[in-house]
Amino acid sequence: MPNDAMPMHRFSREQIEAFMARCFAASGLPDDDAKSVAMMMAEADMLGKDSHGIFRLPGYIGRIKAGGFNATPNMTVDREFAATALLNGDNGMGHLVVKKAADMAIEKAKTAGVGWVGLHHSNHAGAASVYSNMALEHNMIGLYVAVGSANHLPPWGGTEMLLSTNPIAVSIPGDQENAIILDMATTVTSYGKVKVYAQRGMEMPEGWMINKDGTPLTDASKSDTGFLLPIGGPKGYGLAVIFGILGGTLNGANFGRNVVDMNSDPSSVTNTGQFYLAINIEAFIDPADFKREIDDVIRQMRSSPTLAGFDRVRLPGESAHTAYADRTANGVPLPEPLVNNLAGVAADLGVDELG
Amino acid sequence: MPNDAMPMHRFSREQIEAFMARCFAASGLPDDDAKSVAMMMAEADMLGKDSHGIFRLPGYIGRIKAGGFNATPNMTVDREFAATALLNGDNGMGHLVVKKAADMAIEKAKTAGVGWVGLHHSNHAGAASVYSNMALEHNMIGLYVAVGSANHLPPWGGTEMLLSTNPIAVSIPGDQENAIILDMATTVTSYGKVKVYAQRGMEMPEGWMINKDGTPLTDASKSDTGFLLPIGGPKGYGLAVIFGILGGTLNGANFGRNVVDMNSDPSSVTNTGQFYLAINIEAFIDPADFKREIDDVIRQMRSSPTLAGFDRVRLPGESAHTAYADRTANGVPLPEPLVNNLAGVAADLGVDELG
Repeated sequence: MPNDAMPMHRFSREQIEAFMARCFAASGLPDDDAKSVAMMMAEADMLGKDSHGIFRLPGYIGRIKAGGFNATPNMTVDREFAATALLNGDNGMGHLVVKKAADMAIEKAKTAGVGWVGLHHSNHAGAASVYSNMALEHNMIGLYVAVGSANHLPPWGGTEMLLSTNPIAVSIPGDQENAIILDMATTVTSYGKVKVYAQRGMEMPEGWMINKDGTPLTDASKSDTGFLLPIGGPKGYGLAVIFGILGGTLNGANFGRNVVDMNSDPSSVTNTGQFYLAINIEAFIDPADFKREIDDVIRQMRSSPTLAGFDRVRLPGESAHTAYADRTANGVPLPEPLVNNLAGVAADLGVDELG
Repeated sequence: MPNDAMPMHRFSREQIEAFMARCFAASGLPDDDAKSVAMMMAEADMLGKDSHGIFRLPGYIGRIKAGGFNATPNMTVDREFAATALLNGDNGMGHLVVKKAADMAIEKAKTAGVGWVGLHHSNHAGAASVYSNMALEHNMIGLYVAVGSANHLPPWGGTEMLLSTNPIAVSIPGDQENAIILDMATTVTSYGKVKVYAQRGMEMPEGWMINKDGTPLTDASKSDTGFLLPIGGPKGYGLAVIFGILGGTLNGANFGRNVVDMNSDPSSVTNTGQFYLAINIEAFIDPADFKREIDDVIRQMRSSPTLAGFDRVRLPGESAHTAYADRTANGVPLPEPLVNNLAGVAADLGVDELG
């Protein structure tokens, strides 16, 4: 992902987390909430989700300033069953709302076997796998689905952008091996990745986006003139619809034409929907046995012979684990234009710069 | 799908259902089970799932005869939580095992909000949407995932077929509009569809399968020399892994290298895994409101402008509803070679022919 031509600067996790916490606290979030959002955003950067970590800070701060986020939400439970809850996020930052949903779902799964918490009046929450990973330490599988915060995908065969990239993340614990972490948009690429390409002046490969006449769109700076493509054509479209309904419509959140574009409209309530599912492994199998079986699955895949052109077979999440190790040792690489943006944010808020 | 060059014969749902029930009863299934399996297989044909209905009868009957299915299973619950159960299918026909899982999950969702039932020692159960549809009349959303019954997919970048098409089906009720029904393999096409193409002597499009050297494979009769491709490359691979673990490993069922190829091995116990998830709409939103919202989603998509080359925008499940209406009015079209196969099955079992 990083462009060699672009100067990069490395900062430690502690540095970026503390910087973001300063910015959020200066923007009116309670200290604990400011720290919590900063922690989840820094976690995204550690996982290599460059388009969903500190890269988003200027946009988020702008949204708080414009009144698009409620800096002091009062989240409430609208409906509750033994294994489920519907949570009203009160337009708080999505990170806080989804974290609460994950905590509730995990708690419910302890006794019910699974826990499913749906959300409305939430907001963009950054990297999906940050949340699915939260189940792992509880010997659970975490699954998180979000309605994307801007529509960049038409239905299959259409040209009106009624759908978003509606991502899914699933985290499954191994024993000696790293967790399997699938974190994917239902489109060939995420719009966040397109934005990173645009910021870094990189050309996109064909197959990521098309123009409104169906021709390939590769200039990332012109991404707003075309639309994303779903994986597997009608299948990815179908998944985007299903995830949009389960994350949005089912929870009384926006989906389809009424989705608010978070990027172009900084002040409207987005009524973003998501859901979190925690699966208690013990409800099905001894967790220690399960984790050894997952190690075996991982080793089967990884040791299998390769197709011409591939150096080896990878598991979902492998690049995230690699990024995590690299960034723990060497810091998080940030491109110079982003560092400059962040300096501007610090100046605006009157807080100490990143570093 | 039907090839115009291939003579087709139409039979009513009642005819094919009664015929299949005769065959299963003559093969040793208790009468109620024989009728139940026949009903679910006929439903697959009505939904247009030509590769998963009566087309499978000769193979299933052969498997019963060879001892690969237990004709009189004693299904037992191994583990149970408020919202979950783990069910041992005792190597019964998958249709019976998955039907029981759906019933249990729906019952649990009434009080718990969601119900999740995992299966081991189940078997191939035919068309996935037959089961996801079962939730609809209960004002629930049905979701079903299966570990495929033969490995035809390598991990991304690999050549060893460690994965199956691991399909998912999700059914979501509308009010005036037909339900949204997503029923898809995580591969570009299902292996069942490849088998139909082979039987009908049709050439496959490029992009469905590749040879072991990475070149396109389009001759369906040579499908066993190559492998299927996942949707979205590494993303479809990731989904196949996740679904395989949730349907298989989590339930103590086979996944990966130990999957038994149902087609080449008629007698071994497959220990097939699946799971069924029922989501009680009422746990999140008033079901009548929800169904009206789904109608609105459907109408937004369907009325949206089309891309060049498309006549209109379709919803997931639209082709199934169209097939259902056509087959209700005109019967189920069966190609002549299949009708001849079925006559042979009837003769072997000493039951009345289809008709």
